[in-house]
Amino acid sequence: MNHSIIRYIMCRVLEFQAAFLALPCLVALYYREKAGFSYLIVAAVCLFVALIGKRKKPENNVFYAREGFVTVSLCWIVLSITGAIPFVMSGEIPSFTDALFETISGLTTTGSSILTDVEALSHCNLFWRSFTHWIGGMGVLVLVLAILPLAGAYNMYLMRAESPGPSVGKLVPRVRHTARILYGIYIVMTLILMVLLLCTGMNLFEASTHAFGTAGTGGFGVLNTSLGSYPIVAQAIITIFMILFGINFGVYHLFLDRKPKEAFLHEEMRYYLIIIAAAVILITWDVREMFGSLFEAFHHAAFQVGSIITTTGFATTDFNLWPGFSKTILVLLMFVGACAGSTGGGIKVSRIVILLKLVKNEISHLIHPKRVKHIYFEKHIVSKEVTRGIQVFLISYLLIFAGSVMLISLCELDLVTNFTAVAATLNNIGPGLELVGPTGNFSIFPAPAKWVLMFDMLAGRLEIFPMLVLLSPSTWKRG
Amino acid sequence: MNHSIIRYIMCRVLEFQAAFLALPCLVALYYREKAGFSYLIVAAVCLFVALIGKRKKPENNVFYAREGFVTVSLCWIVLSITGAIPFVMSGEIPSFTDALFETISGLTTTGSSILTDVEALSHCNLFWRSFTHWIGGMGVLVLVLAILPLAGAYNMYLMRAESPGPSVGKLVPRVRHTARILYGIYIVMTLILMVLLLCTGMNLFEASTHAFGTAGTGGFGVLNTSLGSYPIVAQAIITIFMILFGINFGVYHLFLDRKPKEAFLHEEMRYYLIIIAAAVILITWDVREMFGSLFEAFHHAAFQVGSIITTTGFATTDFNLWPGFSKTILVLLMFVGACAGSTGGGIKVSRIVILLKLVKNEISHLIHPKRVKHIYFEKHIVSKEVTRGIQVFLISYLLIFAGSVMLISLCELDLVTNFTAVAATLNNIGPGLELVGPTGNFSIFPAPAKWVLMFDMLAGRLEIFPMLVLLSPSTWKRG
Repeated sequence: MNHSIIRYIMCRVLEFQAAFLALPCLVALYYREKAGFSYLIVAAVCLFVALIGKRKKPENNVFYAREGFVTVSLCWIVLSITGAIPFVMSGEIPSFTDALFETISGLTTTGSSILTDVEALSHCNLFWRSFTHWIGGMGVLVLVLAILPLAGAYNMYLMRAESPGPSVGKLVPRVRHTARILYGIYIVMTLILMVLLLCTGMNLFEASTHAFGTAGTGGFGVLNTSLGSYPIVAQAIITIFMILFGINFGVYHLFLDRKPKEAFLHEEMRYYLIIIAAAVILITWDVREMFGSLFEAFHHAAFQVGSIITTTGFATTDFNLWPGFSKTILVLLMFVGACAGSTGGGIKVSRIVILLKLVKNEISHLIHPKRVKHIYFEKHIVSKEVTRGIQVFLISYLLIFAGSVMLISLCELDLVTNFTAVAATLNNIGPGLELVGPTGNFSIFPAPAKWVLMFDMLAGRLEIFPMLVLLSPSTWKRG
Repeated sequence: MNHSIIRYIMCRVLEFQAAFLALPCLVALYYREKAGFSYLIVAAVCLFVALIGKRKKPENNVFYAREGFVTVSLCWIVLSITGAIPFVMSGEIPSFTDALFETISGLTTTGSSILTDVEALSHCNLFWRSFTHWIGGMGVLVLVLAILPLAGAYNMYLMRAESPGPSVGKLVPRVRHTARILYGIYIVMTLILMVLLLCTGMNLFEASTHAFGTAGTGGFGVLNTSLGSYPIVAQAIITIFMILFGINFGVYHLFLDRKPKEAFLHEEMRYYLIIIAAAVILITWDVREMFGSLFEAFHHAAFQVGSIITTTGFATTDFNLWPGFSKTILVLLMFVGACAGSTGGGIKVSRIVILLKLVKNEISHLIHPKRVKHIYFEKHIVSKEVTRGIQVFLISYLLIFAGSVMLISLCELDLVTNFTAVAATLNNIGPGLELVGPTGNFSIFPAPAKWVLMFDMLAGRLEIFPMLVLLSPSTWKRG
């Protein structure tokens, strides 16, 4: 294990964190809020530590997948802790556990909150809360790779470890270039959304926070009613952009390369849009009697489906009161998740599709043993490596899921609350059903349960393996 | 597809069905019940059709996995239909859907009932209901193989398709011999249990029905209180035998071969017993306040854990009223299931263990890419074929699970009822939670939902692939 380089990269990440923390200071300055000082202090400390730590250059560049996983996990943990301190210092989230939960929920773009009254927070805290979504959405190390001229093979491993989805293989050769393009698209789309939201009458603060929450598919709002009290136009715009940010950014990459045809034929995007369309139709039909008009039913169905499948977690209405069929569809969508290479979480459409193809392939193999068929995805043969990775991901995902449900069931809440609480955190969605539904929140859980859910949020965002590698004893054997 | 041989085997199975149906006739004779005539008639018809059908010998013995899967699925469907007719004819379960549900639930050793008042049934119907458990427990085709001198390679494929668990590879060379040994063990253990139950004061009818229900890990009782109203000794004996019938019969095979050491070192059995011990301890601790003494809590915990993990489904108490932690453990055990090569259902301990080893292996591969490690189970290297089979099993299992929950959620019952109803049928357990809990039953579901659950029961008992192959269009292409 190459400790020196891990230390070095973490220091560079701390520099970025210092820069991130400066933004809420500006917000505090504008709104004349004392809470801003806590951000200033933490930013200063981060910068100081970073400058001290990075003085000693790493001895060598030996860097493998193992180092990549460990670095990414550690960086995310450090970002979470440093990001939580201002909440505590400002006294607005006095408990460190709660503050850390809120920050991890933000960075992992989950959007589960322990706050019973969001509106009680000062502007700078609300801004930071939403901004963490934006940071976590595309990933910090991707940003580091995009900006810093890091040499060595570790770009690939860092990118691999932080980017969601079964494989970023095609992006690998020019990691740095790709990282820049991804962030370019990310920034431009966020700005467009911000402008559109301003046009609907939101002020700059609301527009930016909701843009961050949508872009990162996070879901923190600034009002207790989430988006329920905003005009239908704003809700519609956010519906569209949630779905756009849930699409594999490779598609936009293709558009930039002037390959619209390939972009429209992108397999994962097509399945993703088909699933959304099917879910919206079924739910609209199921909830039609609950709303004044069919259009209204469609509007809310589309918003909730977009919000859940992209794992954003905004709410316009309390879908916990919807009929069982709609709720079941939403719960299933929680697991499907968005596209790989997007800012969304969940198992990812591409994984589901490849798993389905695996089953189809196995059946036809049983029927015609002599016929050997390959599995194709995005017009490429899916390698044994990739399928194995996906299958092992699914298995470890299920194990963590079962273990978490068992652990939090110790707090004696109802089974649906426990089940959907884990589903909502491990898939980085935000709200679940019953007590953790759109109108509820996670303050009902005792501290130990919150720590389990924090682990789930990180494991979900980093797609499990980085956390497992970090926690596996054999990682730390023989230095 | 070799139709003639499939036809021939199905006729032989119908002969057996005629013999099976003769037993309730004797019971009816003893209790002077008119319902017996319906069994006599159906038995006669089965025998007649069988004799006609088998006259024409099959042209050739071409027989592959495909034929094996199709034969087994079709045989089970025929057994279910012919087994359901007497219920309808006797007028005690007038609806054919309900009668078929009850019969499939019996044959698949599920034990989910649509009856609101079990005690209203006549003795011969109750006997048949429980006897179907015994038939389905070890499997009909295994019995056919044990008795009839069938030539050809299809013994292996039939055995494969009907026996639960990832691989019966080691049994393959002497299929017929093995089938006999398995049934020998099965019959002897059932008789021992029957005698023990007679000693506890049960009459021959109760002793035999409960012995069948325990041996097949089915769970149909003859009283509305399941086993709640029987003496604690009887409950304890059944607890022990449920667990014994959930053990891989290969272990008993080893004992017969005078290899006690190997038997005690049997890996799957060890994990199975460890899981049971852990679950019993946790639940005893969790429910200690609900019962008079710690022993009583232990007794009920042990009974329920044994009943659920072996997928039997007997109940001594309404565990739906137990605290959330215990209920969550029981729900997780529903999925774990018993050992491969036992009469129990579920995913099977061996599959779970191998999947866990896969994850462990993948992580150490990520940490030390150069090290190549094999996965060992029962001291043998697990082949790529087997692991692939297990993974694809898990995936299709999850897909069928999700699809079923979505379909039955259309009947607007609560989510826990829907979820556990599918879990209880797909894993062949019997009772679930809430409305389908130990005191509830499946009569609450409308007919379409019942058909979904019937499919789940068959898919669960035959471990999915036979049903999928039967339903796959490409099976039927080109004759």
